[in-house]
Parts: sequence; structure tokens; C-alpha cells
Amino acid sequence: MPIDPQHQADIDALRETTSQTRRVTAPALEEILYRPLPVLDHGFVRVMDYMGDDSAIVQAARVSYGRGTRRLSEDKGLIAYLMRHRHTTPFEMCEIKYHVKLPLFVARQWIRHRTANVNEYSARYSILDKEFYLPAPSTLGTQSRSNRQGRGAVLEGAEAERVLTLLREDAERAHAHYVDMLNEDENGATVDPTRVGLARELARMNLTLNFYTQWYWKIDLHNLLHFLSLRVDPHAQYEIRVYAEIMLETVKRWVPLAYEAFAEHAMGGAHLSATGLAVVKRLLAGESVGQAESGLSQREWRELMGLLGREA
Amino acid sequence: MPIDPQHQADIDALRETTSQTRRVTAPALEEILYRPLPVLDHGFVRVMDYMGDDSAIVQAARVSYGRGTRRLSEDKGLIAYLMRHRHTTPFEMCEIKYHVKLPLFVARQWIRHRTANVNEYSARYSILDKEFYLPAPSTLGTQSRSNRQGRGAVLEGAEAERVLTLLREDAERAHAHYVDMLNEDENGATVDPTRVGLARELARMNLTLNFYTQWYWKIDLHNLLHFLSLRVDPHAQYEIRVYAEIMLETVKRWVPLAYEAFAEHAMGGAHLSATGLAVVKRLLAGESVGQAESGLSQREWRELMGLLGREA
Amino acid sequence: MPIDPQHQADIDALRETTSQTRRVTAPALEEILYRPLPVLDHGFVRVMDYMGDDSAIVQAARVSYGRGTRRLSEDKGLIAYLMRHRHTTPFEMCEIKYHVKLPLFVARQWIRHRTANVNEYSARYSILDKEFYLPAPSTLGTQSRSNRQGRGAVLEGAEAERVLTLLREDAERAHAHYVDMLNEDENGATVDPTRVGLARELARMNLTLNFYTQWYWKIDLHNLLHFLSLRVDPHAQYEIRVYAEIMLETVKRWVPLAYEAFAEHAMGGAHLSATGLAVVKRLLAGESVGQAESGLSQREWRELMGLLGREA
Amino acid sequence: MPIDPQHQADIDALRETTSQTRRVTAPALEEILYRPLPVLDHGFVRVMDYMGDDSAIVQAARVSYGRGTRRLSEDKGLIAYLMRHRHTTPFEMCEIKYHVKLPLFVARQWIRHRTANVNEYSARYSILDKEFYLPAPSTLGTQSRSNRQGRGAVLEGAEAERVLTLLREDAERAHAHYVDMLNEDENGATVDPTRVGLARELARMNLTLNFYTQWYWKIDLHNLLHFLSLRVDPHAQYEIRVYAEIMLETVKRWVPLAYEAFAEHAMGGAHLSATGLAVVKRLLAGESVGQAESGLSQREWRELMGLLGREA
Repeated sequence: MPIDPQHQADIDALRETTSQTRRVTAPALEEILYRPLPVLDHGFVRVMDYMGDDSAIVQAARVSYGRGTRRLSEDKGLIAYLMRHRHTTPFEMCEIKYHVKLPLFVARQWIRHRTANVNEYSARYSILDKEFYLPAPSTLGTQSRSNRQGRGAVLEGAEAERVLTLLREDAERAHAHYVDMLNEDENGATVDPTRVGLARELARMNLTLNFYTQWYWKIDLHNLLHFLSLRVDPHAQYEIRVYAEIMLETVKRWVPLAYEAFAEHAMGGAHLSATGLAVVKRLLAGESVGQAESGLSQREWRELMGLLGREA
Repeated sequence: MPIDPQHQADIDALRETTSQTRRVTAPALEEILYRPLPVLDHGFVRVMDYMGDDSAIVQAARVSYGRGTRRLSEDKGLIAYLMRHRHTTPFEMCEIKYHVKLPLFVARQWIRHRTANVNEYSARYSILDKEFYLPAPSTLGTQSRSNRQGRGAVLEGAEAERVLTLLREDAERAHAHYVDMLNEDENGATVDPTRVGLARELARMNLTLNFYTQWYWKIDLHNLLHFLSLRVDPHAQYEIRVYAEIMLETVKRWVPLAYEAFAEHAMGGAHLSATGLAVVKRLLAGESVGQAESGLSQREWRELMGLLGREA
Repeated sequence: MPIDPQHQADIDALRETTSQTRRVTAPALEEILYRPLPVLDHGFVRVMDYMGDDSAIVQAARVSYGRGTRRLSEDKGLIAYLMRHRHTTPFEMCEIKYHVKLPLFVARQWIRHRTANVNEYSARYSILDKEFYLPAPSTLGTQSRSNRQGRGAVLEGAEAERVLTLLREDAERAHAHYVDMLNEDENGATVDPTRVGLARELARMNLTLNFYTQWYWKIDLHNLLHFLSLRVDPHAQYEIRVYAEIMLETVKRWVPLAYEAFAEHAMGGAHLSATGLAVVKRLLAGESVGQAESGLSQREWRELMGLLGREA
Repeated sequence: MPIDPQHQADIDALRETTSQTRRVTAPALEEILYRPLPVLDHGFVRVMDYMGDDSAIVQAARVSYGRGTRRLSEDKGLIAYLMRHRHTTPFEMCEIKYHVKLPLFVARQWIRHRTANVNEYSARYSILDKEFYLPAPSTLGTQSRSNRQGRGAVLEGAEAERVLTLLREDAERAHAHYVDMLNEDENGATVDPTRVGLARELARMNLTLNFYTQWYWKIDLHNLLHFLSLRVDPHAQYEIRVYAEIMLETVKRWVPLAYEAFAEHAMGGAHLSATGLAVVKRLLAGESVGQAESGLSQREWRELMGLLGREA
């Protein structure tokens, strides 16, 4: 992900400007503010702004006149308590804004989370660059047999090469024809004066779904954590998971106590169904329980045994 | 938009089944229930379900034990009053669910309206048909000179033909390679047993943005009217406007009084800025006002004169 | 909760009217449609309208042209799968509308769920009846010692009597003064012609928080289940829990398969933290674990042991 | 609104702490940060945090790598353009958080705006202070004759005095009985050791709706402007309008260009219905139009003439 010099200069200028503020700040997040964190072959995540930190969570939970914080251990305990008991509103008091560059097919999954604010680069208004996603060979998965929406083993040798060639050639051709139909160069100047050029809002339909787009994306901490819990999950598609993983690192810098509570109570934990819980109780009571008498389907049984670290 | 025989049989079966209900019904909407209303070359809009009618608006506004309706003229007056004074909550008491087939680049605009519920056909899970949008020659607009996100005159002759050929050939090639990479036929059977096939969630990235997708889309009447007011607007892209226009017809069948109030107070009306209103007052007072002394920019002046049906 | 004769006649008229519809119907829900289900001393819940049933969930999950249903066992399995894996969007395709009568302090908790549509009876516009909530003696809890936001044992004898007398007398006096300040009778006629009467929007501030209000409340099934999971929880205040319990019964009539999946995977299940899960694994491996070496706080340990049905 | 010394010390401590930040700051808003701005007799609005300024709007509209700002006149023109054409998403990129103290009956109107994040002081958990709203004599309106949800002339003399006495005495008695039922002092210590005390979550129902509550309330700029446009409107109840007016002043300090565009295009402007627009055109063409031949109702005619500054 090479940033072009003009954009790099813009970023440097942002990073060099500092001001005094009476607001709370998150120094570890300020360190990386505005800096593009690379994802995939051309993508990035940049933290552009934020509001609040761990103290804003306890301040809101206590509806305080002042900072609302007490001893670190008390604040930590309160944040864990709120997370454990699904008192989600104090987490909504923190807000973060990202600038993200991502392939169109990833953007289409991402936008399904409706609680964020979004401003996307407009291909009705502007011309899209020739930048498209090509999977790294190590991520070129075959269709999974066990999971209809997942990948299995990695493609190898000639087949992998063939796939990458098709993807690259089709994307390159699509972009060449896109530019050709527009009859414009990057600065909007006419290329061939004997032609008029198709409207941008139409020409863009010739691009393939691996082309990159960009957006500003702003969300509160509670909804961000919900987004991340779904998108760092192993069932999420690899290409969105890598964004979620990078964003999780920014959360750790921003609100370390909330991050810890999230890791303990949401990400690292597990949900048991009523029948699953009954099985656990029987096992703890020393009873020998097999799938047949568990009341669980084979799939549910496998999932439960996996969770408990036992052979299915 | 030819519906294939299996889908047509499914639709017919839905339409033939009727039940008794104590709920309010909208007979004019029932007439077209489930029926695909064609849009563009392969798209459609189908009303799949609805809840409430005009009476549900007045019932909620009056928080009634019964139907809450009175004489037609009173209900009509109340609905107009609610619309005029932005009392929007009673309109939220009606809900409608559509099945829509639409090109991906239209879906990307549409989904920006976040207040709806959506279930989209999954290309992680299923294989997309070879159906893509090709503009009718009469809609093949050039890039507008006056509006950076719009179209001007229509492309003609050889240039139009060339554009359509490029769009068609690129879409056909993209789909052929998509199927090739999958190494599956429509039923999921392996085509070439010497290859394993790329995961669906990856192969889909080779498709161009004019391919069709489908979704179930459900929304309340207030938010639907907001969506329609933005999307039947002449500034909306033609390809989404034609969907909005068809949906507006379904609204007319469903809630005729709300439709009428919407046409009178939202769509057909106009918003004046503070300065624009001052200009109107001066004109009404017989004063001669030109752009220079109006306080409006040239663009705003043109818009206002257009609105008032006067020469700019 | 005696319904006055005029309202009863309105309800009867609604129930007697039936129409033909092509939409799906939920016969068990139609049985109780419009009927007030009593809650607390003057409150009720009435189902006023609904859209969809279990089949609408599978139809949307499959983005079907037709009903989308298959064998009952397949539909049931799919709904359970969607619930288990947090694929929440198909549950959003069902919608329900309630008419609820409830004390103001309950309404203030309830309204915090922001995903519903609401029309409340307006005390700016109308005069509130003299109906207020008095707890049944069996629910007159003392302040809990262990939980700062809960109740402990029940007040008894003279103290209980005293509390009920204070609540009743203050509410009666508040309403008498409210009416007095308005200087209007129920029909809006002036009582004392020598006075002008205070505006309704002001006079209402004299009412106590146990007075009843009413609203129409409409929500989709996913968000309703989320609301119910929080409000049937033993930590929820008794006065809102009884509403949630009645509503849960209406869900069972409406979408029995979704109800079953919800009971199995949400309500009846349990969430383990990362550390809690580790403790369970150690116990299953036959290790003897106490709170001290568990990594859990005393409170978390008690909660976990309670969940597993073991002594803390 | 006297702030007690402990709270004042908390506020002073917040105001004295400053940090370096790389984020954009709004100096005019920093000036008043944390400071309670008095509203009504005991209420206040405090800006507790914010994110973004005018530059964040243009930065998002341009999806910039850097600040995205150009010359002031260009930024100003762009913001006005976005406001005029309802391109609302860039305004969502700014966020603000308030601490508000307000009477319960105002809180019940306010909370109907569902797009904000809220943490309210919990009367299940804590004891409410003896602070209630008493209208200033100059705002003690009678019920309006022309508008069923509004006020007319001001009550005077003995009647005004009587109303204020009733409101004060009932609120004082309600709080005294509330405290009595709790059997707790402000610090949670038992008052009468022979009684156990009613649970807080129950006792609070004895309070009248003019008691003050507090909350943290966080919202993005677009939704804030929507809230303000409805609540600074002359039809809004006086007691919420005064909050909106103070908040509008904070918006002016925060995002002066957006404020200006809002004043010009939303607040100061006017919406004409289709028929109203036709009347204006006829008048401009020199035609003499009266209500009878206008197609408008008498009420609509009066409203239009009022808008145009003409006699009805």
C-alpha cells in the first residue's frame, strides 16, 4: 500500500498540527492518529478522530458532574460489570471516526451494519483509480465442503496461477474500458475530442467488485464492538476479518479497559444454549453423556465439545 | 424481464392462496400482491407483504381503542395536517415489504438508506445468474457539463454502439470467468474433476457492477416516503429513479390519502431559504428585484426563478 | 382492568370485521387480536396488527420467489441455525404492533428501546384519566441490600398499609389539583366560568409517575426479542417484567418456531466469560477449583456456580 | 440554578485540565466546555465533549486524506450546498455530548428523538433531590383556544398564585412522602430503625412530573439540527424550547458555517405546498387570489399569508 506523495504530505501536515484542548485525550491513540494502517494489498484503516476514552464510560454510567473516575480498580470493575450485564448505553458515549480504503465486495458486507455514519467516495462525481484487490496466494481458498459460505484448502500450482491471471486481466480490462468510455483523463480533460464520453455514473458499472473504494466511517464504541465481534469471528470472510483485526488494535489503544472487558466477556467467552447448559451440568455431575442422549443435533454436539475442548 | 416458469409457478401459488383475517386490508394493493412489476431490463419490484392502511395512521394519531376513523374528509384533513406539520410518527405505523431485483451499482446507492430491514441474496452461499444491466440506448447519457454528478445529452451512433458492446462483452466475459473459477454448474456439481474450484465468496469479486442482485426490503411508510422523495427527484440517478417511481405507484394503491398528502406537501411543494422568501416578499410588494441585489448566488437565483416559473 | 363500555364496543366491532387477504396469517394470533390482555391494576397489552409469521423468516433467509418453506423440520432447523449464529436480519422481516396501557414510570424505562415506532397519548392535547398504579401488597418490596437497583423482602403490616395510603392519597390529590388547575371537565367544558384554566401542557406536570399513559408501539421481531430478553430477565423491574411476560405469550402464538429457538438459544441459555469457560473446562477435567484460584471475583464466582447449579 | 460547591469544584477541575491533541478543536466551544448554561429554574445544559468542526464536514464530503478544507468561501459554499440539497451525511461526521438537567415532563418529550445516545440518572439506583420546576409567572399560560396543544394568554393575579401554590405544595409533599417511604437519608442511611423502607424503584413513582432528572445526551450534528429545528419552533412547548435555544448557541460556537447554512436554509426558510406554490405564482403574475379560489383551506390560507407577510 504505497501512499502517493501528495496524500503523504497531507497526512504529515495533519500529524504535525497540535492544539490545546480541555477534552479528554487518549494518548496511545493520538500516536497513530491519521496514519494509514495497511490492510490487504491496497487497503488501509486510518483513525481520523475520536471522542472520549475509558473515563467517559464511567462518567456516563455515574452521570457525573466531573470526570467520574475513581481508583483504577473500581473503574475497571465497573466497566466489566457494565459489559457483563449488557448495560450498553455508557459505551455509546465514545465515538470514533475512520477513513477506510477497501474493495467493493468488502464494502457491501460492511455497509450492512446500519448504526454507523458513512461518507463514501462518489463514482458519480469522481473517477475511480486503477486499484483492485488480488488475493495473496496463501488466501486463495477453495469452496468449503462443510460450510456452504466458507473456504477450505488453498488452491495450488497452475490452478491458483490461472485464477490470479483471470482476476487481474479482467480487472485491468474493465478499468481500461471504463476510462475509454469516460473519454476523460484523471483530471477530467477530454482524451479524444471526436467523442463525448459516457456519464461517470454509468461508466462505473463496468468495474469489477474487487476495485477499491474509500469512505469515512464513524460509529460509537458499543456498536463498533458489536461490529467487531461479528467480523473478527472465524466465520467472517477473511477479507473483512483483516480489517476488523486492525481496528481491534485501535480499540485497545483507545479504551484499554473496555477492550479488556470485551475480550473477557464477549470475544473470549461462549454462549451455551439451554440444552447445552444442561449437558454441561450433567457432565459436571459425573454423568457420561453422548450426542445421542444429549438432545443436541450432531452439529450442535460437535460445536459444544469443541468449545469445552473435548473430543466429539 | 421474463420470469422463469418455476418462479412463475411459485408466484401463482402465492396469489391463489387467500385467508380470512381480522386485520385491515388494502384491497387495491392485494390486487398486485406478489406480482413482479418490471423495472429496467431484468429487474422488478414485488410487494410481498404490508401492514396497515390509511386508517392505521389516523388510529395511531388518535391512540384509539377502535379503528379511530371518522368521516373521510376528517381523516383526510388529519393526514394532511400530520404531513404538513411533520408529525411523522403516525406514518411509521404502516409497514411494507418488497422483493426487489436490481443491479449492484443501484443496490449500493439504495442501501445507504439505513432505516430499512434487508435480506440480500448471498453470493458467498449461492451462485449468481448471468444477468446484467445494459442501458437502453435512450438512457445512455453523456457526462453533464453543468452538474458533476449527472448526465447530459444522449450518446449516439457509433459511440453508443461501442459503449454497449464494451459493457456487454465485459460482463459476459466476467461471468464466464466467474463460473470457470468456481468450477461448478448451477446445481453445484463439479465441472472439471481435475480442478477444485475457487470459493464462491472470492470468485464473485470478478463480476461487474451491472450484475443483478436481489433482496427483501422492508420499511415503514414514513421512511419509505423519505426514501422516495429523495429518489424520485430529478437529481437522482435514472436507474434508481425508475424503481422509486414504480414504488410510488404501490404507495398510491396502499394508502391513497397519505399519497395525496405527500404529493401536495412534499413532492409537489418547494422549500424557500430565508433569503429566497425575502425575495418573494419583495416581488409580491411590486419591487423589481434582480439577482445582483437579491442576496442569492447566481445558482440559487436560477433555482428560485425556475421554481416560480419566471425567467432568470 | 375494567374496559369501559364504549371502548369494549369499539373492540368488539374490530374483532367482528374480517376480510380476505393474500398475505400470510397467524391464526393463533388472530384469535386474540385487539383483545386487551390485562397487566397490573389498570394496564393492558393488545396486539393491534402484525405482518409475517415463521414462514416469512425462512422466506427472507432464502430470498424466495414463493413461500420459501420446506418440510417443517427443515424450517425449524433453519430458524434455530439463524438464531444460534446471530443471523438476525430474517427475524426483522416480521413486524407487530401493540396498544399498551402502562404507568408513566414504566413507560420511561420502556422508551429507552429506540428501535420501535411509538405514538403516545398526548397530555398536551388531551386530559388524562384518574387512573394510577398501586402495587399489589405482595409486590411491595423493600430496597434490596445485595443489589442497589432491586427489591428484597416484602413490606408487611402497618408499614405496607402506610405506603399504600400515601401513594393513593398523593395520586388522588395530584389528579384533583390537575383537574382544578385545568378548570375543565372531561369533555373540555369550563367548570368555573370566573377562571380561565391552566394550559394542559403545564397542568400535567402535577401528576405523579404512577399515572397511566397509553401508546401504540410497533417493532420488528428481532428487536422485540431483544427487548424481551432484557425485560423478562429477573433483574428487570417487576412492573415492566409483567408486560414482557404477556408479550412473550403473544410471540408464542405468532411465530412458534422462532419462539422455541429464542427459548433454547437466548432466554434459556447462558453466557460464559473467557475465564468462566476456563473454569468449566478445569472442572470437567476433574480438577478441584475454588474461587480463589479461579480468576473470578467473588460475585462472578457466585454467578457461575449458580448457573452450573453448584454450591458457591 | 445554584450549583453546589462540590459540583462546582468538579467542574473547575475539568476546566483547568488541558492536553495536547492532534484532533481538530473548536476554540469558541472549548471556552464554555463543561460550564453549566442555566435553563428554567434549576436546569442546565453543559457541553461535555465534541468531535469535529466545520472542517470535518467538508473533509468528509470530499473524502479527503488531509483536512479537505480550501478557501473559506469555498467551504462555506459547499456547506450551504450540502444543506440546501439535503446531503445530510457529512453533517453526521460531527458529534457532541451534553449533560442536561431537565424536568421529567420535558425529558419525556425529548427522549422521543431516537437517534441520540442517552445515559440517565437512575432513580432505581439513587435518590432524587428535592428539585422541581415551577413556571415563572410570565410563562403561566392558559389553554389556547385556537390550538389544542398550546397556550394562550398568561394567568394573572389570584388564579396564577393559586396554581403556583398547588404545584409547589404537591411537589413538596410528594418528595417528603417519597423520602419517608424510602426511610433513607441522602447518604442511604436508615432514618427510622423500626421500619425497613420501600425499594427506590417503587418509591419514585410518588414524584410529580416537574421533578428534575439528568442525563448525558450525545448526538451527531445532522440529527441535532433536526431536533433543534423541531424544538425551537414556536409550536414546541416553551419548557423544551428554552433548552433548544441554548443548544443552538452552542452550535453557533462549534460549527459557525453549518449554523449559518441551517439558519438560512432550514430555520429561516419556509416550505410551500404544491397548491401554496401555485398561489404564489398567480400572485406574482398579478392575479388577485382570495382564499375561496386558492384551493387552500382557511387555516392553510392564513398560514400562507402569514408567511408572505400579507393580510389573510
